[in-house]
Amino acid sequence: MRTIYLAGPEVFLPDAAEVLAEKRRLARQYGFEVTGPGSDEKDAPSGVASAHDIYIRNQVAMDAAEFCLANITPFRSISADVGTVYEIGYMVAKGRKVWAYSNDHRPYADRVWSDWHKSEGQAEKQGKDGKAIESHGMKDNLMIDAGIALGGGQVLAPEAPVADIDRDMTSFIKALDLMSKL
Amino acid sequence: MRTIYLAGPEVFLPDAAEVLAEKRRLARQYGFEVTGPGSDEKDAPSGVASAHDIYIRNQVAMDAAEFCLANITPFRSISADVGTVYEIGYMVAKGRKVWAYSNDHRPYADRVWSDWHKSEGQAEKQGKDGKAIESHGMKDNLMIDAGIALGGGQVLAPEAPVADIDRDMTSFIKALDLMSKL
Repeated sequence: MRTIYLAGPEVFLPDAAEVLAEKRRLARQYGFEVTGPGSDEKDAPSGVASAHDIYIRNQVAMDAAEFCLANITPFRSISADVGTVYEIGYMVAKGRKVWAYSNDHRPYADRVWSDWHKSEGQAEKQGKDGKAIESHGMKDNLMIDAGIALGGGQVLAPEAPVADIDRDMTSFIKALDLMSKL
Repeated sequence: MRTIYLAGPEVFLPDAAEVLAEKRRLARQYGFEVTGPGSDEKDAPSGVASAHDIYIRNQVAMDAAEFCLANITPFRSISADVGTVYEIGYMVAKGRKVWAYSNDHRPYADRVWSDWHKSEGQAEKQGKDGKAIESHGMKDNLMIDAGIALGGGQVLAPEAPVADIDRDMTSFIKALDLMSKL
């Protein structure tokens, strides 16, 4: 059985249970056994012990998976959810087959410009915070995109804006289809 | 020689060269040989080939290091720089000794509340985006904090706001001091 770890910030959605169930159903349809964050984490008790429990559960699930498909759609920022990014780095280091998708069609550099509103006199590669903007045509920070690509994976994204950026399944399904043929 | 990978978003600062040189000087003072992102990346050519070159250089540097000290101060968001987070996940997976520090004194949940302005009628564990807010008293997403802690590392932070959040070295030095005794 081919096991896939589904990484992403859906666990934080108010309808996390429904969205995660649909993602799992689709992944199974493409021949994968599914591991990854459950739908109960947003209701987990506060505190360190609970956080460590969740971490250990996720790490066990990652270690058991041959594949990882990560949702790097921006989360509360211009970049992916950092929990998801941690998992991408972890899985690349473990030599797993890691792919990702973003439901934001824009490259990172365009996103910083659009969301941050260029000020007069700013250099082209500098944000409003005075810090440089990576401009490699990638979907997010180059460590994510390049780490995935150099490991043989792909980062997919739509060509145009999607209606529901948190729940659109088009790129997710496209990735599952391609990964099912690996 | 004990080699340390210094991860962080300083490479994007306008004075990256000076800040990185100072961090390297301090790490050497605590007995470490230093690897990690250079100060030339913000001036790197655009495009995929350049991004892959930088990635490979960073991965070689990570693989050569026994220790990792990551700056997880929020970057253009309420969370750490995603490139840095990728490296934390990577180094934890490789079994390295990973520590981190944030120059933001607030736990993640407080930061989301402060920076996102609670709206009337919102549930206590929900952001203005309707998504759940992790509330475990951690500095950032639990995958980062718990991954480091369960690997034997620590996440340090100041007790009160610092004057220059992008350049303050207090927690960095404290971490180096503790790590030099490992």
